Order: sequence, then structure tokens, then C-alpha cells
Amino acid sequence: MDQSKYVIGMDFGTESGRVVLFDLADGREVASAISVYAHGVIEERLPGSGVKLEPDWALQDPHDYLLVLQQAVPKVIKESGVDPTQIVGLGLDFTSSTIMPTLTDSTPLRSLPQWRSNPHAWVKLWKHHAAQPEANKMTQIAHELGYTFLDRYGGKVSSEWFFPKVWQILDEAPEVYQAAERIIEAGDWLVWQLIGREKRSAAMAGYKAFWSKREGYPPDDYFKALDPRLEHVVDQKMSRELYPLCANLGGLTAQAAAWTGLKAGTIVTTVHIDAHMSSTAAAITEKPGRMIITMGTSNCHQILGSKETVIPGICGYVEDGIVLGFLGYEAGQTSMGDQFAWFVKNCVPEAYEQEARTRGLNIHKLLEEKAARLKPGESGLIALDWWNGNRCVLVDMDLSGLLLGATLATKPEEIYRALLESTAFGTRVIIENFEAHETPVNDIVATGGLPGKNKLLMQIFADVTGRSINMTATEQGGALSAAMHAAVAVGPELGGYTSIAEATQHMTRLSEQVYHPIPENQRVYDKLYAEYLTLHDYFGRGTNDVMKRLKQLKLEIRD
Amino acid sequence: MDQSKYVIGMDFGTESGRVVLFDLADGREVASAISVYAHGVIEERLPGSGVKLEPDWALQDPHDYLLVLQQAVPKVIKESGVDPTQIVGLGLDFTSSTIMPTLTDSTPLRSLPQWRSNPHAWVKLWKHHAAQPEANKMTQIAHELGYTFLDRYGGKVSSEWFFPKVWQILDEAPEVYQAAERIIEAGDWLVWQLIGREKRSAAMAGYKAFWSKREGYPPDDYFKALDPRLEHVVDQKMSRELYPLCANLGGLTAQAAAWTGLKAGTIVTTVHIDAHMSSTAAAITEKPGRMIITMGTSNCHQILGSKETVIPGICGYVEDGIVLGFLGYEAGQTSMGDQFAWFVKNCVPEAYEQEARTRGLNIHKLLEEKAARLKPGESGLIALDWWNGNRCVLVDMDLSGLLLGATLATKPEEIYRALLESTAFGTRVIIENFEAHETPVNDIVATGGLPGKNKLLMQIFADVTGRSINMTATEQGGALSAAMHAAVAVGPELGGYTSIAEATQHMTRLSEQVYHPIPENQRVYDKLYAEYLTLHDYFGRGTNDVMKRLKQLKLEIRD
Repeated sequence: MDQSKYVIGMDFGTESGRVVLFDLADGREVASAISVYAHGVIEERLPGSGVKLEPDWALQDPHDYLLVLQQAVPKVIKESGVDPTQIVGLGLDFTSSTIMPTLTDSTPLRSLPQWRSNPHAWVKLWKHHAAQPEANKMTQIAHELGYTFLDRYGGKVSSEWFFPKVWQILDEAPEVYQAAERIIEAGDWLVWQLIGREKRSAAMAGYKAFWSKREGYPPDDYFKALDPRLEHVVDQKMSRELYPLCANLGGLTAQAAAWTGLKAGTIVTTVHIDAHMSSTAAAITEKPGRMIITMGTSNCHQILGSKETVIPGICGYVEDGIVLGFLGYEAGQTSMGDQFAWFVKNCVPEAYEQEARTRGLNIHKLLEEKAARLKPGESGLIALDWWNGNRCVLVDMDLSGLLLGATLATKPEEIYRALLESTAFGTRVIIENFEAHETPVNDIVATGGLPGKNKLLMQIFADVTGRSINMTATEQGGALSAAMHAAVAVGPELGGYTSIAEATQHMTRLSEQVYHPIPENQRVYDKLYAEYLTLHDYFGRGTNDVMKRLKQLKLEIRD
Repeated sequence: MDQSKYVIGMDFGTESGRVVLFDLADGREVASAISVYAHGVIEERLPGSGVKLEPDWALQDPHDYLLVLQQAVPKVIKESGVDPTQIVGLGLDFTSSTIMPTLTDSTPLRSLPQWRSNPHAWVKLWKHHAAQPEANKMTQIAHELGYTFLDRYGGKVSSEWFFPKVWQILDEAPEVYQAAERIIEAGDWLVWQLIGREKRSAAMAGYKAFWSKREGYPPDDYFKALDPRLEHVVDQKMSRELYPLCANLGGLTAQAAAWTGLKAGTIVTTVHIDAHMSSTAAAITEKPGRMIITMGTSNCHQILGSKETVIPGICGYVEDGIVLGFLGYEAGQTSMGDQFAWFVKNCVPEAYEQEARTRGLNIHKLLEEKAARLKPGESGLIALDWWNGNRCVLVDMDLSGLLLGATLATKPEEIYRALLESTAFGTRVIIENFEAHETPVNDIVATGGLPGKNKLLMQIFADVTGRSINMTATEQGGALSAAMHAAVAVGPELGGYTSIAEATQHMTRLSEQVYHPIPENQRVYDKLYAEYLTLHDYFGRGTNDVMKRLKQLKLEIRD
């Protein structure tokens, strides 16, 4: 009889939730399933009521998350043939800051008939960017009143974080704010559904809600200065009790066991941010100066440090935020796969779609193939990768995308390649910013959904950054890391591990494929990067604020 | 028996030649036919030999022009049912400066086996932009040596003109230059095919080859200063004998009569530049301060003046160049329809093509419909209309296209509309430049192929420029004007007219449809235009020469 033990990792991304079952002993992937969110990202109209959303809104439906538990988990168990008693732990990651208002019994406001047609009652997804005015005011007031907590976050509040979104609810829908007994990260809410208790993640609060292990949340006076009604937001709607990564939060409820087909009591661990999660599988503990880039819808850059350094323009650093015992520095780019998907959806001519069909290729593959035939610099194009704003180092969601150099001979694959290159230039800005602040970046490990799918992208990243790129062996880095966290929560008595370092040794490895910079390409990209930097500073640092003015005009016109 | 007299106008554009038969008495269109050039615009490889062309090349095959005479003219005669004896004159316009090397008997070098695989032996189309280095040197040397002829041309030589193309042949293929007994405008060459004699157009030489009625060509010393081998280019390869518009150049040869089905001896008049030709049909003589914009592949702006004014950055002014007795001021934009066609070919997703098919719409119409639903400023996008360089007022073919403001929510019709708007902003720069130099622009008449096809474009031009836009009643403005020139060449004895003014009274009228600026749109466009101007000057006037550096890099990489 099979005596093996297993753990499940669940990776909740922007478009879907992925469930993977791993062998606890060696990290081998046994079975996996994916559940695409039925409502996806809601950007134009509210399902049901048809209420029109403003520009920059991005919502989700929490019921889509539950379907992952109810459909994908049972499917994985069935396909694996594993007995549920052998599955000892469950870990998960989630996008963040993705927030929702609920009642004290965890019921989403969106599920109550009286709130269903109010957009503020729904889940605000991480890339909901409509709280930019609130984010700007939060930055300004923190600086004016001399609060230093923003030093840990590059000095600027992002509209993607927790509190700007909360404040937007209060600003625009005080009745929803009033009715919200809890305001919670969707990932924390999902843990609540699994174990029947509200146990929030310290790592999420650390990266997205200004919480730190030493100082806790910013003082109530700060929130009061924003708006008197916000003074007690932490105690009224949130919680000061936060749980570290890899904690054993308790067992699965009978209800959740019924949904999933797992045994009641199966150990559940703390939720972590999806972009950070993969870094565990990328063996981040192994090597100093190693940057992990999680490449998916957006890009997240992580470095582990042992001393505290204030680095402007990064997303932040959190003690124990990535791996227990280290300071986890984070930077990021708001659009990556998202930007390529936009291009594929909106800018690829029919002839290319036909060619892809005829040749049995995915359209991304066809574009990659055509773009790979071009040499760096051959298209004469350059782009600024700001289709979804700039998270680092400018921290400005009102910036927008730019394409320069088009001629009548410009082809779709040339634009596509320019978009790939632009994201690599954006990463190089982030690397150079780390290095300018006592944080060397020697090599890169790429993880997440994109690296295995696009060789050209990996080579461009190596050429533009001048650094070798390793990849994790698994494409399920998020799910594997979540499972590894569960393995530590489970502990050695049930076949798990004592630490993430130990779990890493047993459960992860890097791919044999490594991308090295090609000197000839580097020389050309150094020139293009110089042009990128000039445009980056001209449009991003206030010389010409045309992007912000156009956005302001757009909002006025649509009003 | 029908005693009516008729004239034929032939309009040789970038992609095709159009032949129209008009009633001499009232300008009524009797029949028309179009002959699309089999080889179109040759930009990638030479037909036959497959020789690869460099970037920015644009060639044509002169045999394609002859097919217009051999196919479209007989078709028009047949369809009209008119007896060829009643067709008393033939006029034509042609793109310019579109040049070709020939022998003294008019044989194109391209038709000789020994030259067929040499790209320099083919026709260099107006939008062949590879002679930019020669154009730059011509400007520099003219200024250094104190020549003033460039004052009539806005101070800068364009790579689209005659001599830069000639000099490029000498630079890159001295053997072709040597073998070229004549170098001639393709339009003049076609007249040669019709009447059997080389009779060149003074208007073409005036706009494109620095010739003026008072001063002739620049002195040989100037050409010698460019390159000693060019010293006698005018006398060796060209002609100082030039013919004004509306001249009776002689009768059709027996050969040409056999090709066309017309009677030998039918009167042929001087060829004119296609973009200028339409202005005749636009009643340009009627009203002071009226600007005619010929909108097609590119845009050409014309104003008649009676006093000589030096206006920087325009294409030039030529005495008698548009209408006899007036100074014809010309400006232009290098890409218009071309830029929209590029978009439609390269950037429209399959779903839109499918929708157009399902609804039985042309794809341009579908895009126009979707774009027309947007309000000005609603997309947050702005573009620089430099997909094919900038002809006025920057006169720099090394500039390239720019799109700014893209987000993940940007839709194809928003980009399409931004491209339409960018061409209107470019026209407003030209208008303001005229007005800053004692040349008021009160209203606009739009002619050419585009105005009748795209109402949205016309409304945007009215809103952006703040001026009413009239349109010519005919969409065949080029052909009608060519026919009117023939009508004057024919003279009153054969049923024609004594002057263009007289022909205009009888043969032309404006459309009843007029586009007036909408004040609400104007207010938004004034803001967007201010942004356009800032970008225009930043990228176009030397603050950031990134476009030129990218182009230079592209050329180096491709070498």
C-alpha cells in the first residue's frame, strides 16, 4: 500500500485558480486542474445589473473563487487516484491587494440583494486603479505629517494597495463602507472559508497595508488625518492579529471538506501573495544577489536581504515577508503578460490568425516565432511599458503606454517585440535602482507562467539586463510554493518539514535551461536602453506630464 | 446626332491610374475606369530578380502606367458609347517627384535586360525616402554657399524631390547614372509616350526641381559643389525647355491612338502634379484665403497668392504652379490615407473583420462607425502623424510615428481615431504656419479620394482646425482638373475654354455638404492640440532626436 504523503498548493491568479497535488517527499507534481473564473476581470459592466463601471475599475466575483474549491480540488484528487487521507496539508496564494467588504460571518456584501448592483460591494482586484486620487492624498499627508512608514515602501502609496481602495469605498459609497463589518483581502477571506475563522496573513498586510512586525499598522491618527471616519478602520473593519507564513492555522471545516473532497481537519496554512509565492520554489534562499522575477500578468521582483536599506521607488520590504528570517525586498511592473495579451487581442491582423490556425500554432507562438527572426534594433521601434501604469520606480498609475518609431513598413511582430523589450527595459531600471542602493543583483531566476512559454522573452531579458536567467523547473511555482508552505505547517511528524530551507532542498530544483546574455545584442540594447531612460524620465518625472493630463481629460469627458 | 464634345482626364496616383470622360460643356462625368498597377508600390523585392531593397525604398514599374492607356482608356470609350472623334482633348496628372532614367528614345533603363536587376534603373516613387542623406547635404551646401533658391521651398530640401533622388543614383549606382541619357519625371515620360516628344512640365519642375519662371534652375556651380559629376546634370539629362499648364503640346501619335482607341492628333496638354490638380476642380480661383487640401495617400495643401511671401517649412511656391497668373503655395503631409491603410492592414483584429463581413461593411467603414461613437479626448490617446516622415513644417523624413496614452483598455477604434486626429493636428500646424506669415486661411475645400469616404475624418478636420470644410462635388477631382486643363488647351474653337477661370465656371461645383466646427469638440481639441505641439517640437525640433537615432541604428543593423 502506498504510504506517501501529499500536499495541495492552490494558486489564485488574476484570471483563474490552479490546484496542484504534490508529493511531499520530492515535490513531484502528481495532478493538476485549473478553474477559470466565470466572470474573469469585470471592467465594463457589473454582471446582472449591467451597471456601467468608470475607467480604471477592475472587479471580481468572490463566488468564482469558491468554484475553484468545489470543482478543481475534487478533480485533482480524482485524477491523482490518491486517497484523501494521504493529503495532509493545503496552502494557497492569492493576488493582492484584492479586497472585499463582508459581514462578520464572512458573507460578501456583493451576495446581499440590497448591495448587488453597487460596484463598491464587489471585490476590488489588485489592478483596480481608480483609487489613484486617494493614493496621492495618502502619500501627501504621510509626508506632510512626518510619518516614516512609507520609507519601507519606496516613499509613495500605490493605488493597488489596501487602504486607497478602502478609502475609495468611503469616498464614493459611504453607505457600503458603513455596511461593511469587515474589509478583507480576498485571500484571507478564502482561508476563512476553509477553516471557518478569520486568520489574516501578516505578509499580505506587510506588503499591502503598511503593517510591520515591529511597528504594526500606522497609528489611528494618520487615518484620522485622511478622513475622521477612517480613524478606527483597523479596529472596526480589520484585525491586528496577523499570522506569519507557514503557520498551522487549523483544520478544514466539514463544509470545506464537503466542497473539496478533502478530509475535515486537513491542515491549512497562511495565504501568501501570488507574486511572492513563486520565489520559494525559485530557491531564493540559496544565493546572495539573486533576484527572483515572477512573470505573469504582471512582474514581481524579489530579493532577500539581511540588513535594512531604504530604497526609493520600490514597492517595499517586509521582515519575514518572503522567507521567514529575511527582509523581503519587492519591486514590480504592473503589466507584463497583460500587455502582450492586450496586443494579441487588439492588434493582430486576421492574416496572422489564419496563418496560426493553418500551422496549428498558438497566436502567441506565431508572434514569438516572427519576432525572434528580428535582430535587436532592426524594427526602429521603442516602447514604454506603461500600459497599466508604472509600479516601480516611478510608482504612478496615471502613466500610460507609448510606442515610438512606427513607419508604414512596421509589422505586427515588430510592435510585439518592442513590447517584450519594453518590459525588459523596465526591469533593468528596477535592477539599477537596487544596485544604486547597496543591493547587488548578480543573477536572475524567472518563475511564474511566462518563462516556460516564451524563449524570446527570456533571451531579451538576459540581453537587456546583461544577466544570466535561470528558470524554476516547474511552471507551477506558485502552487508548489504554496504546497511547500503547507509542508512546513504540517511539520515533520506528518511527513513535512521544519523550515522552508529544508522544504526547498527536498521539493524544488532549477531548470537545466539557462539564458545567457549575447554580447552583440547587449551592445544594441545598451543604446536602446539609453533612449528608453530618456523617455522614461521625460514622461515619468514631470518634464512633460502629458500622460496625466490626457488621463484627467478622459475622466472629465466620460463623466 | 449628338454634337457634344468631350475631354478625358487621367489621374495617375500611387496605386492606380484612373481615366474619366467628361462632357466639355458642363463637366458631367460620362464614364470612368480604373487600372490598378500590377506591381503597385515595390518596397521589399524587385520583381523578377527578387533583389532585396533597402528600408525606405519605394519603386514602380513604368509598364504599369502604359497599361492604363491600353486598358482603362478603351474601356471608358466603350462604356460611354461616345464616338472618339468627339473626344477633343486629353489631360493628365501624376505623382511627383516620381523619376526614372531612360535612353534618348524614352526607353526606360529598367526595360533593358542589362539593367533590369538594378533597383536604381526603376522608377523612384515620390515616397521613396532613401535619399535623405543627399537631401540633407543639398540643404547644407545651399545654405553654406549662400544660395537663396531654397527660400521658395521653406528652406529645406525634401528627400521626396527630384534632385536628391538623382544624386542617390549617382552615389550608389554611378553606372546607372552614366547610362541614363535622360532622367525625367514619370508624368513627363508618359506625355512623351502620348505625343512622341519630350515636353516637360514647368509646374512639376517648379515644385520639385527648384526651377522658377524667373530664375530657371539653380546654377551649375551649385550642382558642381554637390558633386563635380553633377555639374551639368540639367543640360546632360534634363531640359531647360519647360511648358506651362494648359499648353497645347501637340497631338496623339498613331501608336498612342492605337493603344487608347482615341483619334491620332487628339490634343494633349501638360502634365501636372496629382495633388495640385484637384485644386482646379475645387474652385480655388474663387475665394481669397481658401485652402484646398487634396486628401489621398498623402495630404497636399494649396493656397493661391498674388504677392510673394517667404514662408518657412512649406514645400514651396511656384508662379503659375497651380493656376496661371497666381503664386501657388504648397504644403503637405506625407502620410494620410497611407497611415490609415497601414493601420487597417496591420492592427485590426480578426473579430472586427468578421463583424464587418457579417454586416456587409467595408472594414474602414466599420472602424469609422465605432470611432465616431467616441467623444474627442475620450480615448486618452494622442499620436504624431509621422508614419511616413514629416513634410511640413519640419521637412524631415527621418521622423517616425508615435502613439501615446495606451492602456490595457485601449480599443482598435480608439487608436484609429487617434490616427485620424493626428493628421488633423498636422494640418493645423501648417495652417498656423501660413497665418503666421501673412497668409490667412479662412476656409477649407477638401478634395481627392478620402473626403467623400470618411465623414468622421471631415468632422475632425473641421473641429481641430476650427474652420468649415467644403468638398468638391466630384470625387474625381484629379481627373476633372486634368480634363479642364485639356479643355483650355483645346480652346474655344473646338468647344473648350480660354482660361481655367472660365472652365471652372462651367465644369465645376462644390458639394452641398459642408462640415462646420462643433464648439464643444473644438474646446477639447484645443487642449489636445497643445499636447500635440509640445510633442511635435520635442521630437521634431532637436530636443530629443530619438527617432533619428533609432532610424540610424535600424540602417546599421540591416546592413
